[in-house]
Amino acid sequence: MSETTLFIHDLAAAVSPSGIGPLRGKSLGELEIHSPASVAISGESILAVGKPEDVMRDHPPGTDCVSVDGRGKVALPGLVDCHTHACFLGDRAPEFELRSGGASYEELHAAGGGILSTVNATREGSEEELAAVVWRHLGWMLDHGTTTAEVKSGYGLNRESEIKMLRAAKRAAEESPVDISSTFLGPHTVPPEFETAGEYVDHVIDEILPEAVRYAGAADIFVERGSFEVPEARRYLEACREHGLALRMHGDQFTERGAIPLAVELGIRSVDHLEATGEDGAKSLARSDVAAVLLPACALFLDLPLPLARLLVQEGAIVALATDFNPGSSFCESLPLVMNLACTRLGLSPAEALTACTANAAHVLGLDGKVGRLASGYQADMLLLDAPDWRYLAYHLGGDRFAARIKRGRLLSF
Amino acid sequence: MSETTLFIHDLAAAVSPSGIGPLRGKSLGELEIHSPASVAISGESILAVGKPEDVMRDHPPGTDCVSVDGRGKVALPGLVDCHTHACFLGDRAPEFELRSGGASYEELHAAGGGILSTVNATREGSEEELAAVVWRHLGWMLDHGTTTAEVKSGYGLNRESEIKMLRAAKRAAEESPVDISSTFLGPHTVPPEFETAGEYVDHVIDEILPEAVRYAGAADIFVERGSFEVPEARRYLEACREHGLALRMHGDQFTERGAIPLAVELGIRSVDHLEATGEDGAKSLARSDVAAVLLPACALFLDLPLPLARLLVQEGAIVALATDFNPGSSFCESLPLVMNLACTRLGLSPAEALTACTANAAHVLGLDGKVGRLASGYQADMLLLDAPDWRYLAYHLGGDRFAARIKRGRLLSF
Repeated sequence: MSETTLFIHDLAAAVSPSGIGPLRGKSLGELEIHSPASVAISGESILAVGKPEDVMRDHPPGTDCVSVDGRGKVALPGLVDCHTHACFLGDRAPEFELRSGGASYEELHAAGGGILSTVNATREGSEEELAAVVWRHLGWMLDHGTTTAEVKSGYGLNRESEIKMLRAAKRAAEESPVDISSTFLGPHTVPPEFETAGEYVDHVIDEILPEAVRYAGAADIFVERGSFEVPEARRYLEACREHGLALRMHGDQFTERGAIPLAVELGIRSVDHLEATGEDGAKSLARSDVAAVLLPACALFLDLPLPLARLLVQEGAIVALATDFNPGSSFCESLPLVMNLACTRLGLSPAEALTACTANAAHVLGLDGKVGRLASGYQADMLLLDAPDWRYLAYHLGGDRFAARIKRGRLLSF
Repeated sequence: MSETTLFIHDLAAAVSPSGIGPLRGKSLGELEIHSPASVAISGESILAVGKPEDVMRDHPPGTDCVSVDGRGKVALPGLVDCHTHACFLGDRAPEFELRSGGASYEELHAAGGGILSTVNATREGSEEELAAVVWRHLGWMLDHGTTTAEVKSGYGLNRESEIKMLRAAKRAAEESPVDISSTFLGPHTVPPEFETAGEYVDHVIDEILPEAVRYAGAADIFVERGSFEVPEARRYLEACREHGLALRMHGDQFTERGAIPLAVELGIRSVDHLEATGEDGAKSLARSDVAAVLLPACALFLDLPLPLARLLVQEGAIVALATDFNPGSSFCESLPLVMNLACTRLGLSPAEALTACTANAAHVLGLDGKVGRLASGYQADMLLLDAPDWRYLAYHLGGDRFAARIKRGRLLSF
């Protein structure tokens, strides 16, 4: 039997999504709550979560075990942010100001804003600069409880810069307690060097993808008017699948144009955004195994209509939540804040919101059974919330206060 | 000439509302920005803010001066939260959960939620317990940059408990770097011991107010259907004025029922909420010297319609922003987060939002010329924002990161 190396005793409670794999329907909001609780960890893995006397009896602290007093604290799984654009240089603060005054997309563009300003800044920086910024961003995320994050490319839009982004994210993660999952988003927008989306997608498939697969485990594309349409998305995603990548899609952010039918047909991992998805699309997604990733901080920044979140839950979709952290449309790396927006604006319960950014987010990243739950055998990624009730994580807006963060069995602070 | 005791040199910028007194119309968004800048402080007061060479020449560091390297940091005035209910016991996390599922006011009430659950918890606690909680809340506020906060009573609703609240807030502030401004809110709701609002207001005026004036500098009342109507508000506010208190009012949160006409007639300090205020009310308020205090975190928690913020600004109202921090309808103590909501949902610019929770909030608290600006003669309450642009305060949602907080000339962290 493995020796207990970290022992968190007498917690007010330990709270986790229930079951195994992704959760949907009623089970989305069904948590497993032990109160009081202790947690025994061995190395990087959780040995047991349960009643203090049971855990103490079955997994007593070993010789060099670190013991942590959990009284008055609530243990939660480390949060999983399954959709971020955390690898970028520059900022879009001037654009935020213009947007607050109601500037249109065209006006922002004319003022030098928009995604291409981030592309320019990111292309100009070195891999070292970029890695340092990603490392800082991962630290911000960790402050807010994120222990695993997806990081997309997509501000390079050429071979050199896309690979630079993927390498920089990897280097940053080597120096950060936060684990990352890299996603290749070459087709984020059409760069100025190309006349048509089709020509750029050809270039992506032929010239960038073969090297990107060395660094990324998943592929993503932005399906939207003015970006990429369904035929290009199909071509790109099929090529990525041949390279062994998991598939994802930005779909239905502003308009419905076939993202969901394609996603369901190809059986991809997730469609993200869905602010413009109608009832039919939501029901179709809910009947499939394609996850629905909702990004309410982005909807806040852009003043978008809200997705049909309640319908997605009721119809049985695998709903996940993420920050969409990026400099233009969601300069927010806090999942607890996103959970609050999910409860106040999307009609999710705190329990549903917690599952959506732990177990279900882990599923979106292909990490089922590894992270996203407090359960035996899972990686020991854990938060000790300094609050009398786990629901404070969503309820206390801007107040996510952790007494400790534990990553791969290592106590990061107390 | 006063000796410089704290010297912040070579800041990337120092940013402050311009002018003197409350700002309105165009001047609401006109900031005074020095870049680069240094700040010289003597004791509790600011001596000078300006170009590094000018400040160094005119106010060189004294013998025992603390020098702080401001490179890469932006100095801002300490934030002023002019509307909080930070003095309470218990929480309303179960109510937050019910509300996320769309529970009606009646259902919340039936489940033991609502303001009276906070009243019961607050009545039951001792003054010491309450002071400890307020002290903790003031610490949370300070984390988010608040250096001066209003704290209301209003969860006691009888003589003993209302006075206990006011005394507890005072004791907490004595132990906290955050200065408070106490407001008596006896008529927050009608307690179960009284049949009618009128009887309770009589009781408040005759039995509680005479003692409350020993602890509070302002009076407030909740004008709303089911709470207090205009005739009672008039009677209460006139009595409070005779006792020398500044006057404020919760008005137009759910319904328009004469709050603004009464406020304008009596020339009170502010009307707070205004989610239900129509165009006529907004224009009338804008023409007066009564400040409009907007509380967008509360509108988020309760899913209320948004106030006509842009119209208020355009018509020249003295617009302030506050958190409304309380356990039921706004469990959020972060003014930077409120500034983000003001920019994303109310159409205020970052500059307008900054003035609204510094200079104008100070005006609402009767602190004109004392706090809310970085300018010679003002109290040295200051934040050093760890960001390349002051607008990050609103732009970086949930990311307000301060390298230091300075209160009354004292460096709290660096």
